[in-house]
Amino acid sequence: MAPSKQDVKISIAVAGLGRMGKRHVRTLLNRVSAAQVIAVCSTEPTELEWARNEYKDWGIKVYDSYDQMIQHSGLEAVWVSTSTDVHASQTIVAIEKGLNVLCEKPLSTDMEEAKRVVEIANKNPHLKVMAGFSRRFDASYRNAKAQIANDAIGEPFIVRSQTCDLIDDTGFFVRYAAKNGGMFVDCCIHDIDLSLFYFGDVIPKAVWAVGTIAHHPELKELNDVDNGVGIVEYWGGKIAYFYCSRTQAHGHDVCTEVVGTEGKVMVNLVPRLDNVTVAQSIGISHKVQPEYWDRFEDAFATEANEFVACILNNTPVPLKLELGLMSLKIGWALQEALLTGERIRFNEKGEQLDGKRANL
Amino acid sequence: MAPSKQDVKISIAVAGLGRMGKRHVRTLLNRVSAAQVIAVCSTEPTELEWARNEYKDWGIKVYDSYDQMIQHSGLEAVWVSTSTDVHASQTIVAIEKGLNVLCEKPLSTDMEEAKRVVEIANKNPHLKVMAGFSRRFDASYRNAKAQIANDAIGEPFIVRSQTCDLIDDTGFFVRYAAKNGGMFVDCCIHDIDLSLFYFGDVIPKAVWAVGTIAHHPELKELNDVDNGVGIVEYWGGKIAYFYCSRTQAHGHDVCTEVVGTEGKVMVNLVPRLDNVTVAQSIGISHKVQPEYWDRFEDAFATEANEFVACILNNTPVPLKLELGLMSLKIGWALQEALLTGERIRFNEKGEQLDGKRANL
Amino acid sequence: MAPSKQDVKISIAVAGLGRMGKRHVRTLLNRVSAAQVIAVCSTEPTELEWARNEYKDWGIKVYDSYDQMIQHSGLEAVWVSTSTDVHASQTIVAIEKGLNVLCEKPLSTDMEEAKRVVEIANKNPHLKVMAGFSRRFDASYRNAKAQIANDAIGEPFIVRSQTCDLIDDTGFFVRYAAKNGGMFVDCCIHDIDLSLFYFGDVIPKAVWAVGTIAHHPELKELNDVDNGVGIVEYWGGKIAYFYCSRTQAHGHDVCTEVVGTEGKVMVNLVPRLDNVTVAQSIGISHKVQPEYWDRFEDAFATEANEFVACILNNTPVPLKLELGLMSLKIGWALQEALLTGERIRFNEKGEQLDGKRANL
Amino acid sequence: MAPSKQDVKISIAVAGLGRMGKRHVRTLLNRVSAAQVIAVCSTEPTELEWARNEYKDWGIKVYDSYDQMIQHSGLEAVWVSTSTDVHASQTIVAIEKGLNVLCEKPLSTDMEEAKRVVEIANKNPHLKVMAGFSRRFDASYRNAKAQIANDAIGEPFIVRSQTCDLIDDTGFFVRYAAKNGGMFVDCCIHDIDLSLFYFGDVIPKAVWAVGTIAHHPELKELNDVDNGVGIVEYWGGKIAYFYCSRTQAHGHDVCTEVVGTEGKVMVNLVPRLDNVTVAQSIGISHKVQPEYWDRFEDAFATEANEFVACILNNTPVPLKLELGLMSLKIGWALQEALLTGERIRFNEKGEQLDGKRANL
Repeated sequence: MAPSKQDVKISIAVAGLGRMGKRHVRTLLNRVSAAQVIAVCSTEPTELEWARNEYKDWGIKVYDSYDQMIQHSGLEAVWVSTSTDVHASQTIVAIEKGLNVLCEKPLSTDMEEAKRVVEIANKNPHLKVMAGFSRRFDASYRNAKAQIANDAIGEPFIVRSQTCDLIDDTGFFVRYAAKNGGMFVDCCIHDIDLSLFYFGDVIPKAVWAVGTIAHHPELKELNDVDNGVGIVEYWGGKIAYFYCSRTQAHGHDVCTEVVGTEGKVMVNLVPRLDNVTVAQSIGISHKVQPEYWDRFEDAFATEANEFVACILNNTPVPLKLELGLMSLKIGWALQEALLTGERIRFNEKGEQLDGKRANL
Repeated sequence: MAPSKQDVKISIAVAGLGRMGKRHVRTLLNRVSAAQVIAVCSTEPTELEWARNEYKDWGIKVYDSYDQMIQHSGLEAVWVSTSTDVHASQTIVAIEKGLNVLCEKPLSTDMEEAKRVVEIANKNPHLKVMAGFSRRFDASYRNAKAQIANDAIGEPFIVRSQTCDLIDDTGFFVRYAAKNGGMFVDCCIHDIDLSLFYFGDVIPKAVWAVGTIAHHPELKELNDVDNGVGIVEYWGGKIAYFYCSRTQAHGHDVCTEVVGTEGKVMVNLVPRLDNVTVAQSIGISHKVQPEYWDRFEDAFATEANEFVACILNNTPVPLKLELGLMSLKIGWALQEALLTGERIRFNEKGEQLDGKRANL
Repeated sequence: MAPSKQDVKISIAVAGLGRMGKRHVRTLLNRVSAAQVIAVCSTEPTELEWARNEYKDWGIKVYDSYDQMIQHSGLEAVWVSTSTDVHASQTIVAIEKGLNVLCEKPLSTDMEEAKRVVEIANKNPHLKVMAGFSRRFDASYRNAKAQIANDAIGEPFIVRSQTCDLIDDTGFFVRYAAKNGGMFVDCCIHDIDLSLFYFGDVIPKAVWAVGTIAHHPELKELNDVDNGVGIVEYWGGKIAYFYCSRTQAHGHDVCTEVVGTEGKVMVNLVPRLDNVTVAQSIGISHKVQPEYWDRFEDAFATEANEFVACILNNTPVPLKLELGLMSLKIGWALQEALLTGERIRFNEKGEQLDGKRANL
Repeated sequence: MAPSKQDVKISIAVAGLGRMGKRHVRTLLNRVSAAQVIAVCSTEPTELEWARNEYKDWGIKVYDSYDQMIQHSGLEAVWVSTSTDVHASQTIVAIEKGLNVLCEKPLSTDMEEAKRVVEIANKNPHLKVMAGFSRRFDASYRNAKAQIANDAIGEPFIVRSQTCDLIDDTGFFVRYAAKNGGMFVDCCIHDIDLSLFYFGDVIPKAVWAVGTIAHHPELKELNDVDNGVGIVEYWGGKIAYFYCSRTQAHGHDVCTEVVGTEGKVMVNLVPRLDNVTVAQSIGISHKVQPEYWDRFEDAFATEANEFVACILNNTPVPLKLELGLMSLKIGWALQEALLTGERIRFNEKGEQLDGKRANL
């Protein structure tokens, strides 16, 4: 007799035990009934110590080496949640080991390396290799997409999207991000991806960006900013513009508007923590989600469930790995515009015409 | 060696496979990692047929008898999600069989029977027996409670609460509800419970209610209405007032306001399906959750997880069974006021002074 | 040659220089181009002193006697904004003097007297005598009415309406109101009027009300409350329910919902001062209008302009004086229910069956 | 004896009887008690005919020549509401004639001419000459400014502002605007002005803009677009970014956000016509103001009243004429960036370094 579906579980390992890695473990344990977590790894001693204690009763083996972890017997999939500089290499190694991979965005800080990952994945079509653009799993972004598909706003031609994080007084996260490609690669990449999500297949024509440092002077020598605004003009009369910030006082404020010829769709224009509103002598107020996780926890659960389901059922992954390449190219161009003050153009094939990546 | 916590599961059976019963099974399967569903039961042939097909690969035994189901080997807990007339008897049988029980509200359509359930549960303190007032598990209602506890609005003295359902054109649900005690017992009971949640221990002083039939003339002979408004005055200068409806055009519209001496807390004053808003030539609009489940799915998952956790850890249940008794008494009084047109008074001990339940 | 329409002005006197009287003068001076204010009166020495100074350059004669003021040469209309106890007598005297009258609500604290005013006005159809139900001049309430007339919500059958004022710490206003008939006559009268506005010609069937004193213990001996909740059941299956408060912490919070068979119209569910919203570390907030005037200033200007225009053009007044009678009857019944704890019934002609006004 | 202040009136003429001119006449007649309109002018035969009929009983002389109109005996002030190409010359002639002038924005389509107007006005300090940036008179923008001044959001460093008009299917307005300098001079000028309003004295460092034609192909040969997005980087780490559109489906959607180091102020993020919201089977919706006038009618009345008051009381005008110069410079640079695809830089004195206006 076949085992009960309640007992069929994909065995997953989570690489990286930073803030997000820990959360992915929790999601997999609590909200993905078809998964079991059998291993995790980190290279950070404090994370390792924390994990050995935390997971000791949960049947989760804690490794201090990614390469050893992926040897774990019975392992079927890896969730790569490490720092961006090893995303690509870890994904490649896992694929070569025959594992399914969910790799957090961005694939790489290097365009060539990112392309290589895609190439190798494409050579292993039996494996599920998926890019972790979590917003595409959010119910609201999907509903917005569905409404656009149903012609609620006509033909979309403007996307405004912002990713604004609560200020991190320690500055830790900001410095970390600067090393991951800077504002437009690490943070704006989600907004760029959303413009592609809503516009479909579009090719950039020109970009420009400016930024400022409102709270973190140490970013200056890291060639980054903590607030940036950028425009992407696409061939075909479509425009996306973005605002990214690490320094909001009120919480995680991520919103997107899509303007079409017959209307406009707005996602989360005024963020709120929950359904509670309070009236007091100072006015009427509500709380805001403090961070990305609070806004997108359900999306991460959906992402994890869909990834596990496509392994179980051998169906295509919901997000192709290639998706990340175009976003990455645009993100790099915006970051270059930010640093040089120049606008960066592309030809109709999407080849960069200006700046140091021109003709690469 | 102890088994991995990933493998420790409370074995639960779900009684009743109506709309809600099926959902509880799904919640337990997908969102309660420490539970496994081992049995279900129904007396409806179509539900049984559906269940035998749906659950056949899931290791879930389908019974056509509640009494047989609770004999299932290894069973530890029952979720009673049947019609109200058998809530009490099924809960009692399960307790006597040594099972933990989560019983949907209301405990009974009969006050004496409801008291008996509480009595028996109290004699079995080793068992977890819990009332299913799902709103108390909703994050927003809890946040509102926390803010009130933190003195955000001073001393609360007015509660306005409404439970308005999307119109059910078939009329099925409405007739069903009429048999479950009518508008103020079946539907308003949640709002009554919320007034107790926010006011604390209060004793009713007088109630009055009126109603109207907007869509379902067949309710007349069932002594019920499809829209009702009621007031409960509590001893000590506190007032709750309620609006319940089965006939909303726009969706499930459940909101609560608590007015205090220094402010007001509002929960879900304008319902919305998700974070999407659309601007079109007709104006700016958003969708509304179609029903209770869409609004409270997370609350049901929290309820299920907390119930399972208190069995696993042998901790007190979050909601005492007694809670339901006072709500039930007030619900019956409102229903009587609705039918007789008279206001119903209570003395300071909460004993009813008017109407057919007076001096009972 | 006829004079320029810029120079044609109706000459008006304002009776009463309390908070509202002063505002009406300002409205007439600044926002009613076809009016000039030629006289005002008060019996309060401090108001008289204030007015003599304030209006000395404005061509406005200040009287300490209403009777003398209405003798003022060339006077065409009076705006009666005195305390309720003299509304009726002053209106009658003005009519008898051949003046047009805008009389603030309520017409009287005595039903018989109110009827007499209506009678006398009806005998002088050449004069414009209008009831001051200011909300009927508010653009939003009118738009709501228009949408209902356009069948946006089907047949309306429930009205929820609240009038909640910012707390007045001095207690002055509250004591004043108690003398004007109490919570349901002075304050709820607007909400009652709105239920008639949206339902059309309806007859009360039964009412009940309760109240509490949250801030002003001195109201006890004045037989009033500072927070009250009431229900009016109308013949024909229509229900209105009200909440009135003098003690809100956050400002003037006046909202109305009309539920129909196909939808719901909401007016001002979440009050806001203006279009400004602020996001700060404590959350996202906006200010609330502090009082009635801030919410309804435009409505008062519309009211004044329409009243003046109907004098100029000899057209019917927008609000018949009779309108106030039914509201008054219901207001008194609610107030009696509040004080006695009894529900008050009416027969199908609207004759009161219970309480001290029964069979009057 | 001095005349009553009710009879003291500034005599004003309105130049231009297009959509806005007519509205200004109405505002002056109905909402500015200290003004009388004694003359108007237009060169459009249909407007003249309309005016001669409309104003015949109002003591308003209708001229077909601006130069003749300003000879009108007793005239004290002119409201210049003609097309942009004559704003400057008409303002200059009026000043030379000794008249006070309220001139609609922008002062000119030519920078040098605009400067000349300012110069001449400065030589006539006894006359009130004011720029018509109507948003600065809007209660919400002023409240936002006041809150920022009160340190509600710390130091402002980002302004996002949009001016989105309801689509004009006739295309008339769009072609008209193209002749008035194009998208960023005619329409975005208000948003640019708001960035100066909230940032204070700032100097542009670089700008870029892109645009698209969504509905009006005829704009191509007029070198304009019907949707444009632009960024202005100011010296000192401040950034403004703008979206202007002529093609919104839902109405007039004008909003502004100011981000500071400690918070964010939002003005009108979700536009609404009034306080009415409707719930129907399709969802919950509200209407949007169809156009600028509906959103800013009160601001225009405030502007008119303040202009008249500063003539009456000989006080400084609330908005200095110079204000328009910097906005105009930035608007032209954005328009040039739009047309050339190049970013335009400025030095720290605000002198343009790139493009055809460089070193002018």
